[in-house]
Amino acid sequence: MEFTAKIIAQFLNGVIEGNPDVSVNNVSGIEKGKEGTIAFLANPKYAKYLYLTKASIVLINKDFNVEKKVNCTLIRVKDAYQSLASLLELYEQQKPVKKGIHEVAVIEKSATIGKDVYIGPFAYIGENAVVKDNAKIYPHVYIGDQATVGNGTVIYPGVKIYYDCWIGARCIIHAGTIIGSDGFGFAPKSSKDYKKIPQVGNVILEDDVEIGANCSIDRATMGSTIIRKGVKLDNLIQIAHNVEIGENTVMAAQTGISGSTKLGSECMLGGQVGLIGHISIADGVKIAAQSGLSSTIKETGKIVQGSPAFGFTDYRKSYVYFRKLPALKAEIDALKKEINELKEKE
Amino acid sequence: MEFTAKIIAQFLNGVIEGNPDVSVNNVSGIEKGKEGTIAFLANPKYAKYLYLTKASIVLINKDFNVEKKVNCTLIRVKDAYQSLASLLELYEQQKPVKKGIHEVAVIEKSATIGKDVYIGPFAYIGENAVVKDNAKIYPHVYIGDQATVGNGTVIYPGVKIYYDCWIGARCIIHAGTIIGSDGFGFAPKSSKDYKKIPQVGNVILEDDVEIGANCSIDRATMGSTIIRKGVKLDNLIQIAHNVEIGENTVMAAQTGISGSTKLGSECMLGGQVGLIGHISIADGVKIAAQSGLSSTIKETGKIVQGSPAFGFTDYRKSYVYFRKLPALKAEIDALKKEINELKEKE
Amino acid sequence: MEFTAKIIAQFLNGVIEGNPDVSVNNVSGIEKGKEGTIAFLANPKYAKYLYLTKASIVLINKDFNVEKKVNCTLIRVKDAYQSLASLLELYEQQKPVKKGIHEVAVIEKSATIGKDVYIGPFAYIGENAVVKDNAKIYPHVYIGDQATVGNGTVIYPGVKIYYDCWIGARCIIHAGTIIGSDGFGFAPKSSKDYKKIPQVGNVILEDDVEIGANCSIDRATMGSTIIRKGVKLDNLIQIAHNVEIGENTVMAAQTGISGSTKLGSECMLGGQVGLIGHISIADGVKIAAQSGLSSTIKETGKIVQGSPAFGFTDYRKSYVYFRKLPALKAEIDALKKEINELKEKE
Repeated sequence: MEFTAKIIAQFLNGVIEGNPDVSVNNVSGIEKGKEGTIAFLANPKYAKYLYLTKASIVLINKDFNVEKKVNCTLIRVKDAYQSLASLLELYEQQKPVKKGIHEVAVIEKSATIGKDVYIGPFAYIGENAVVKDNAKIYPHVYIGDQATVGNGTVIYPGVKIYYDCWIGARCIIHAGTIIGSDGFGFAPKSSKDYKKIPQVGNVILEDDVEIGANCSIDRATMGSTIIRKGVKLDNLIQIAHNVEIGENTVMAAQTGISGSTKLGSECMLGGQVGLIGHISIADGVKIAAQSGLSSTIKETGKIVQGSPAFGFTDYRKSYVYFRKLPALKAEIDALKKEINELKEKE
Repeated sequence: MEFTAKIIAQFLNGVIEGNPDVSVNNVSGIEKGKEGTIAFLANPKYAKYLYLTKASIVLINKDFNVEKKVNCTLIRVKDAYQSLASLLELYEQQKPVKKGIHEVAVIEKSATIGKDVYIGPFAYIGENAVVKDNAKIYPHVYIGDQATVGNGTVIYPGVKIYYDCWIGARCIIHAGTIIGSDGFGFAPKSSKDYKKIPQVGNVILEDDVEIGANCSIDRATMGSTIIRKGVKLDNLIQIAHNVEIGENTVMAAQTGISGSTKLGSECMLGGQVGLIGHISIADGVKIAAQSGLSSTIKETGKIVQGSPAFGFTDYRKSYVYFRKLPALKAEIDALKKEINELKEKE
Repeated sequence: MEFTAKIIAQFLNGVIEGNPDVSVNNVSGIEKGKEGTIAFLANPKYAKYLYLTKASIVLINKDFNVEKKVNCTLIRVKDAYQSLASLLELYEQQKPVKKGIHEVAVIEKSATIGKDVYIGPFAYIGENAVVKDNAKIYPHVYIGDQATVGNGTVIYPGVKIYYDCWIGARCIIHAGTIIGSDGFGFAPKSSKDYKKIPQVGNVILEDDVEIGANCSIDRATMGSTIIRKGVKLDNLIQIAHNVEIGENTVMAAQTGISGSTKLGSECMLGGQVGLIGHISIADGVKIAAQSGLSSTIKETGKIVQGSPAFGFTDYRKSYVYFRKLPALKAEIDALKKEINELKEKE
């Protein structure tokens, strides 16, 4: 498919600067643009590439100040990143859609399968499991007994969903993620060894949740581990038993949340963050990458860093002096010397 | 199934306070209790919920001091958490048990399969592999050539066990975990690139080991990577080649142990801890979450924190002053000023 | 198979000290050597075991100074570790080789399969996918539509490769690793929730790349996430969308690289390292374990540590004083007191 700048500008409600007849058939990053591709510029860090790119069309923000000559056609839009997302969506919708139930899938007779689903080869659907309309179950997926997969949800290859878990509508779960493995619960049996606490709860993913690849989300000991509507998790994330994550909270890769901790809505967690168990985090809290939280945060929108974490700005200030500690020590030694000299003079 | 408080108290050797005839059919967390459920109270942090819970029955410790009116029936037991574990076990035992060898499993002819095993659809059992009595092999599990799965061991969906590895009796391995992948061993071939060192050893899991979801345990270069009896690993943990982990040691999620490091027995590692290679850690050592160990610990039971880690209490003290570094710098500057004033006065 | 010291010395161009007729049939670590095994000594930390080992033969470096009586036969070689690697390779080559296409693999008709490949049971090869000559596809592997697996590449059980991704020649990908999952890209839809940015790019692995178990490598939003020739990644590593990793760079386990970051060639990253997005790292940079990088490094070969990271030596110095902070505070307090005394005397 080829689209002209004119067609794209119409679709995006944008304004053209340059040749409206130039056409593109693919997308590219602005720094790697080639003829025949469309790129976008949203992050000011990349502004310099606007004057160098070989992309034929570049989407820019309405109020962006073009400082030099450009070789491409510009389309000014309200939000270049959002507009690109809309274009990419259009592009995705052209792809062939996976459909039908493959003959080498195994579906237990007691399972309920909705309309217009895709169930790929080597997928397994357990006893009394429910796969709702328009869901897509890729190869090697395991849906345990009594588990539910909601309307229009996409489960990528190799995902394992243990028994009794509930996945809402329009969720996306990427390959290799495990939902509903046992929580890490053991009671000391003697001074040395442990007795396993059976984990009889489940995991609930509400609607519109996206989970990355190779995450693990443990089932609750009792009750439910709950991931609320609109939550987005990156790859290799650990969510322990009985955790609750509020609506639209997002977490970067390799972060881990310990048992029974409760996060508010619209929080943002950087990568490799760790939270201990049994604490609660207010709405809108932001936690810098690699931080460790060991206590509850009650203040909405607080930004923290460190291990253990405290106020972001304070952490940054302390870290400046951490870097200067040898110099600080030298200052102290110098003062010591001066005081001794003063003393001797008396 | 419904059970009355009376029946449960008898089973647990507990003492009833309240209505002995109230009945329950499910378990719940105390803070989310509903009518018809049984909850427990062990962590004092949750004591306030005892007076608010809607659970019908709550297990409490024998000596717990009830300070206000409660609406539920109490059962006093020696250890509320342990008693709950016993109840949950009873509850688990009611579940239907997976049995039989599914027709779409692939089992090589040279493999040896014990009595009363479960082998699910799409499981693969390799050449000369051994699956002992009462083992459960869930769908999409791969058991490599010459690998052994012990008596009563449960291997959850999608686990991959490479050739020659040995899994003991009564182990539990959660979905997505990889046992026996190659150790990360390369020798410089030139100043730039690397030559792979073949990894010809294996992994041994002794009896009663539990491993969480999506872990990776590498095979030894030569000899064995060894996980001793009773070890419990949480999710997303990395165990490198030739590591040895002592009996009943437990590790929280996302911790990583580098090659050839040896941990003692009954150690406790927090989440996201990292240990460098070729060190050894004494029995009973505790390592705080997110710490990094770069040297051997010889002292039994030592508690450490930091990256690199040192004594836990010392770390906490240093961290208090880290947080106050800007104030410390201000103090130094004030002293400097005072000394200069003293000097000028002379 | 049994080999005598004489045969092995000939194969390795080594010099025998001791009995040339002693024979071995297995390899072992020097500290755990048994009769009939060959071990090696390269790391000086293990030198003490040379005098204790029960291994029948030990490979040592040409210039190693034997200080006490040894019970084994020594073979002196140019590089004991490299020589061992050569021996292990020989040992590996004796193993039976997996061959043929299993009858319960599913291969779409439009796929292209090369000569002498292995495709195991329950493997899936998608529409228009290409598996080149001598490639090995283990059980439960998923090769998405239009994906390519290069000549002689080994894909271990359960690996999932999404559509359009390209794997070069002689690569090794360990079990559970996910290649080509969606990048973590969302645009704010309102003040609260997010709109998914479709990820239409792919992942390219150049030749001779090895990736450990349970890693996740996200596809590019547009263009390609690129892992260059000879890169070696350990287990549980996260590579985000549009990252580029230079030739022969190596990373230890649990490290994560955020979106659009570019690493040079021959870099070495310790375990649990985190890099933020949109930065670039010069060739040959070394990053200590658990460090966090938040800005570009332009200096070739720089060594850094800390979170945020700075010069390795400076970090170590600062950390020495971090450990002494309580003592530093005491020194400051003592100075304060002395100054006050000086003041009072005036």
